[in-house]
Amino acid sequence: MTVTKAPLDQRRQLNVGMLGCGFMGKCHSNAFRKMPYIYPGASFVPRLLVLCGRDEAKLRREALRYGFEEHTADWRDVVRDPRVDVFDNCGPDPLHVEPSIEALKQGKHVICEKPLAVSLQDARRMRDAAAAAKGRNLCVFNYRFVPAVLLAKEIIASGQIGQVYQARMSYLQEAGHDPSTPPEQVWYARWPHSGVLQGIGSHAIDQVRYLVGEVRSASGAVRTYRPERAVASASDGGAEADEASASVLELEGGAIAVVEASAVATGRKNFLAWEIHGSRGSLRWDLEHPNSLFACLPRPGAARLEGFAEISVTGREYSGAAEWWPPGHNVGWEHCHVIEKLRFLEACTGSPMDPAVATFEDGYRVAAVIAAIRRSSRTGERVALEY
Amino acid sequence: MTVTKAPLDQRRQLNVGMLGCGFMGKCHSNAFRKMPYIYPGASFVPRLLVLCGRDEAKLRREALRYGFEEHTADWRDVVRDPRVDVFDNCGPDPLHVEPSIEALKQGKHVICEKPLAVSLQDARRMRDAAAAAKGRNLCVFNYRFVPAVLLAKEIIASGQIGQVYQARMSYLQEAGHDPSTPPEQVWYARWPHSGVLQGIGSHAIDQVRYLVGEVRSASGAVRTYRPERAVASASDGGAEADEASASVLELEGGAIAVVEASAVATGRKNFLAWEIHGSRGSLRWDLEHPNSLFACLPRPGAARLEGFAEISVTGREYSGAAEWWPPGHNVGWEHCHVIEKLRFLEACTGSPMDPAVATFEDGYRVAAVIAAIRRSSRTGERVALEY
Amino acid sequence: MTVTKAPLDQRRQLNVGMLGCGFMGKCHSNAFRKMPYIYPGASFVPRLLVLCGRDEAKLRREALRYGFEEHTADWRDVVRDPRVDVFDNCGPDPLHVEPSIEALKQGKHVICEKPLAVSLQDARRMRDAAAAAKGRNLCVFNYRFVPAVLLAKEIIASGQIGQVYQARMSYLQEAGHDPSTPPEQVWYARWPHSGVLQGIGSHAIDQVRYLVGEVRSASGAVRTYRPERAVASASDGGAEADEASASVLELEGGAIAVVEASAVATGRKNFLAWEIHGSRGSLRWDLEHPNSLFACLPRPGAARLEGFAEISVTGREYSGAAEWWPPGHNVGWEHCHVIEKLRFLEACTGSPMDPAVATFEDGYRVAAVIAAIRRSSRTGERVALEY
Amino acid sequence: MTVTKAPLDQRRQLNVGMLGCGFMGKCHSNAFRKMPYIYPGASFVPRLLVLCGRDEAKLRREALRYGFEEHTADWRDVVRDPRVDVFDNCGPDPLHVEPSIEALKQGKHVICEKPLAVSLQDARRMRDAAAAAKGRNLCVFNYRFVPAVLLAKEIIASGQIGQVYQARMSYLQEAGHDPSTPPEQVWYARWPHSGVLQGIGSHAIDQVRYLVGEVRSASGAVRTYRPERAVASASDGGAEADEASASVLELEGGAIAVVEASAVATGRKNFLAWEIHGSRGSLRWDLEHPNSLFACLPRPGAARLEGFAEISVTGREYSGAAEWWPPGHNVGWEHCHVIEKLRFLEACTGSPMDPAVATFEDGYRVAAVIAAIRRSSRTGERVALEY
Repeated sequence: MTVTKAPLDQRRQLNVGMLGCGFMGKCHSNAFRKMPYIYPGASFVPRLLVLCGRDEAKLRREALRYGFEEHTADWRDVVRDPRVDVFDNCGPDPLHVEPSIEALKQGKHVICEKPLAVSLQDARRMRDAAAAAKGRNLCVFNYRFVPAVLLAKEIIASGQIGQVYQARMSYLQEAGHDPSTPPEQVWYARWPHSGVLQGIGSHAIDQVRYLVGEVRSASGAVRTYRPERAVASASDGGAEADEASASVLELEGGAIAVVEASAVATGRKNFLAWEIHGSRGSLRWDLEHPNSLFACLPRPGAARLEGFAEISVTGREYSGAAEWWPPGHNVGWEHCHVIEKLRFLEACTGSPMDPAVATFEDGYRVAAVIAAIRRSSRTGERVALEY
Repeated sequence: MTVTKAPLDQRRQLNVGMLGCGFMGKCHSNAFRKMPYIYPGASFVPRLLVLCGRDEAKLRREALRYGFEEHTADWRDVVRDPRVDVFDNCGPDPLHVEPSIEALKQGKHVICEKPLAVSLQDARRMRDAAAAAKGRNLCVFNYRFVPAVLLAKEIIASGQIGQVYQARMSYLQEAGHDPSTPPEQVWYARWPHSGVLQGIGSHAIDQVRYLVGEVRSASGAVRTYRPERAVASASDGGAEADEASASVLELEGGAIAVVEASAVATGRKNFLAWEIHGSRGSLRWDLEHPNSLFACLPRPGAARLEGFAEISVTGREYSGAAEWWPPGHNVGWEHCHVIEKLRFLEACTGSPMDPAVATFEDGYRVAAVIAAIRRSSRTGERVALEY
Repeated sequence: MTVTKAPLDQRRQLNVGMLGCGFMGKCHSNAFRKMPYIYPGASFVPRLLVLCGRDEAKLRREALRYGFEEHTADWRDVVRDPRVDVFDNCGPDPLHVEPSIEALKQGKHVICEKPLAVSLQDARRMRDAAAAAKGRNLCVFNYRFVPAVLLAKEIIASGQIGQVYQARMSYLQEAGHDPSTPPEQVWYARWPHSGVLQGIGSHAIDQVRYLVGEVRSASGAVRTYRPERAVASASDGGAEADEASASVLELEGGAIAVVEASAVATGRKNFLAWEIHGSRGSLRWDLEHPNSLFACLPRPGAARLEGFAEISVTGREYSGAAEWWPPGHNVGWEHCHVIEKLRFLEACTGSPMDPAVATFEDGYRVAAVIAAIRRSSRTGERVALEY
Repeated sequence: MTVTKAPLDQRRQLNVGMLGCGFMGKCHSNAFRKMPYIYPGASFVPRLLVLCGRDEAKLRREALRYGFEEHTADWRDVVRDPRVDVFDNCGPDPLHVEPSIEALKQGKHVICEKPLAVSLQDARRMRDAAAAAKGRNLCVFNYRFVPAVLLAKEIIASGQIGQVYQARMSYLQEAGHDPSTPPEQVWYARWPHSGVLQGIGSHAIDQVRYLVGEVRSASGAVRTYRPERAVASASDGGAEADEASASVLELEGGAIAVVEASAVATGRKNFLAWEIHGSRGSLRWDLEHPNSLFACLPRPGAARLEGFAEISVTGREYSGAAEWWPPGHNVGWEHCHVIEKLRFLEACTGSPMDPAVATFEDGYRVAAVIAAIRRSSRTGERVALEY
């Protein structure tokens, strides 16, 4: 008998406390569980220590499911737990604020899902808390970490498409297209002042900031086709739950961009898409075909052979894709979350922060752009942005 | 020997006088020359009577080329010629105004290329002249007559996509993307106050008006990246020659739309493209793949099999395509011009006007939207539109 | 009054006698009628002299329609008419043989639609007649003249994709997919021994020969799903009318190719499509998106940015496209016929023959490949080809 | 403090013994590790018990990486270990045979990667061993479990595309396209008698059998462009390592199919692709855009609106996709392996076998088809298949 006991993983454990048992809890848990074997060269492994949620039965079930060691109904238990290294806030949007700020105060590294907060004021508080904290902070703009998007960023940063003139970004879904869909079946109207701009438009705004440049002004139109779906605020009766919006942004560096967000775009399941035009080339990408970057780049001496090429951003030579599978073996939606969390945790263990990681500062600025679009929609005026 | 003399075409001749020997002259001449055999059932044939242009050598050459019987350097000769039934203005934009108005006064049917005029004021004069005239008038928004666009219009009008919520339209080209391209090589800065919004954006605005609804307000941003390319006006020194623009339009019926026009969209050759989302379905089309309409339409009882279907709008069962070739045998860019002119000439010979035909009223309204976008870009305010 | 009489076209007239008033008659007539103004630099203009057909009423109607000066029911009138320079055989397949051979004997330049003949024996007779004649001959493999295909040929010939290893070509239509479609509504079973391989597969075979290399052997399977549709031969009772076929060809130079032809490919309207893989690059094209060539070509030093690029083969820098419209303004299906006929007529007026023009030799060789595929289907053996 | 200890997973453990530490070991380990939380409703969880490999250092490293409890260099230790429920053979192709047969004899459930064996004779022995065993057996044709492929199967089985006439399947990669690539860098020539037909063509053949029908005959051509890359057999000197092939298959039910496999298809990274034409509809899919099924299905009463629709096979309503993410959130390449293994393990724990699961019988039949194609290439004859 030559069977040998295998060694145990002796890497440093990063203790994760998570708030939230829903879609994002699943997605982040998956990210943490995949790290040990996808990144055997990492110096750490995440440990799913404690899960927090309100519904006791669901909480027990989900903790068991993902292998959390403990669970609690009170987020204060998590953020104050001295064992917890990383607090991961996947809770409902209104719960992003206090737990994240408290965790920052407690010196935790904090991950928070987008939108950073429902109100701009709260987003600013979170940004300020993050600036004052010693822990790292991540606002989950996970689409930055799709390998094709990482490649796009690299191409733009290297000057290969030249000066960017113009871009269009849209995030289109269809949950609300049918007027007869009852309110409880649309995801974007679950609390006051929420809506599609926050829910998914935030990603589109983040992509334009990340890939092209900071937003200097915004003008636009926001629409709620079924106001009866919106949840009213107890305090001010406000009940925005925008279902569609279109806006024009002026960007640092001189480019202009269109940003659209919609949950009434019949036929579009999860269509974050953009196209960016520069003086030397253009790039195009969408989330429903996420492994392909379409790039029109110069062919010196052979301009007549130029066109948008579909690059399969898979395999060893691409950042983000290298650790997964051979060329042409696509990654899926979930993978960008794994890549993002890995890079953030690396910074939590002392490595320099990957500049691709979005911070609370980014989350706040996106919130500011959303507030500007909404205000422009109400007043008809272009709104200048200062952060 | 059984050879017989073939009969001659005895159909009524419609005498055409044309102004302009350039790209559009070629395109319209081609339209007139194809009619007799593509539409043998039409009650008339166009006769290319007289061509007008400024450059004598070119004028002679082009008249010979297309088979015009006569030519002249003075457009007054054409619009006052009692033999001329139809005056077709393919001249440079600044020459759209006076000849067209004079032709209308002379009782001619008048075709005028877009943009109707360089200034909104002139466009309004042309609209008013058309309203007062007894001849028919056509503002050449030829893309209405691409068979796939005709089908889109039919689908929307029949209610198959339900209430329209949202649309995006863009017309993207690349002539000016390279900063080193000299002014004389870009088409959009040949006279003062011209630019890309007039040159091609007008088509995108027309499509949104035609397919979705009238424009009620506009806000946007207009950019000239190479102001040194623009031709200054002698009178006011004005030298706009916008190269890129992005705007948000509010439409009658409640929908919102994004409209973009660009001549700096590297890699896009002639990309008029749109997507329209309604409560029941969505449509998508672009001019670089013009025979395909992508339609996401309901499948009652089988929603899980829905998706954007590529419909080959060719063959007998489609308006505009029927007269050409069998299924899958594509028409090209030029064909929409043939279809449009045929339908207009039919109205000139007494048939009821096809409602798809764009008139000077349409041309004026598009000019008003362009003026509003430009004004919004300057002032930062949303501009309400009344016509 | 400054109106001047325009000059008349003084170019040499090439007198065309045409057999056939159907789809191809329309298509070729269109080609001849467009030449004078699309190619003002050509040294000649075609003159539609005499049209020949069997149905008197239709003949009169079509002669009038296209502007033929004379018409006749007897093709001998045409091929023996001393005024006729070019005999264009657009007649039904069984009528390709005798009139073409007689025209060749009479010294005419001869255009003949594919398939050159229904039987291989007849195709060989035509080839031999052409070889012995002093006039030029063209077998209409018009898809060689789609600008994107001309570009593909240029790329391959220049060595840019290296040694070709493998190719696949298919021509797919759907006329017969529905079992309930009556025989008279399918185009491919109008005479004995006809079928889809001859009707459209011939184009796919021609493309593989033209673009990759001569066929050295063939093996395959041919299917007739509805034998009741086939027209039986009076002489031998044979009633093949293949509806689908698949074959493997070995090519000169070592490459292998798959060729398919189908009239039961539901959803495919007119889908001639191919992909060619070479040691350095690959090319892809299809007839339902004919203006786009997809090319995966080397990017020295940047292999990670390689991918299939969609090249819009429009505008001045592409052979075949130059004379038409600006970049991105697509040509349609009909245009390749105009380009092909122009190049053939140029050779008829003394210019050297464009090597892209397919001759009766090509038509014969394609017929030989078809015969080999059919024989292989019957016997199960790979059939070697010698010509 | 309200923190509670979370429950531990009490589900039945299925002990897995795995042979192989390479690409497939990673992929299968990933599958087993994802099951517990992706399928919380499953009655079991896999336990990674023992890993077997030849390279000691690599073995230790990979066992640690994936969390195997033990490791061994001798596969006999695994297949005879009474604790092992499931033996998963991810070893090199020549090692598929003996360990799998021995495991079957030992009563294990056996998973074996494709190709089942390098020689047909060995594949038959494995098939026979499986037939005689009491354990379950799975030949890994994982692409059956891509949700889009599962949907295709469902559509075909339900009769929605009618009688299938014709199909084409290809699996194209590019590892060997460059003649200068050294032998050790191409994956398909690592042992005698291997090659691309076995390595990836097997998947294409499996898809045609699974989706359309059993193969009744095969004819084709197989090419080795760089014979110097092939590893010779010690026993017979044979050194096939085909790099490209094309074949025509006759299928049960009357359809014909083309199958191609290539590792010299420049630009194609991992392109398993097919199109299937039936009397009522057609389907199209490819592995580089795996979440999309393109389906042309009847629209009763609206045939003119038919076309290939891109169905995003994501979200709750699709078999295989339901357990993952919301609509439009793509799965990646790895997911089909998770789905396949889950379904197989369900059968190992007493559930009825999902008929989609491929067995050693399937693996053997695919091997028989490959042998027939190779023989046809040598002899030039169509080879009939009996199993």
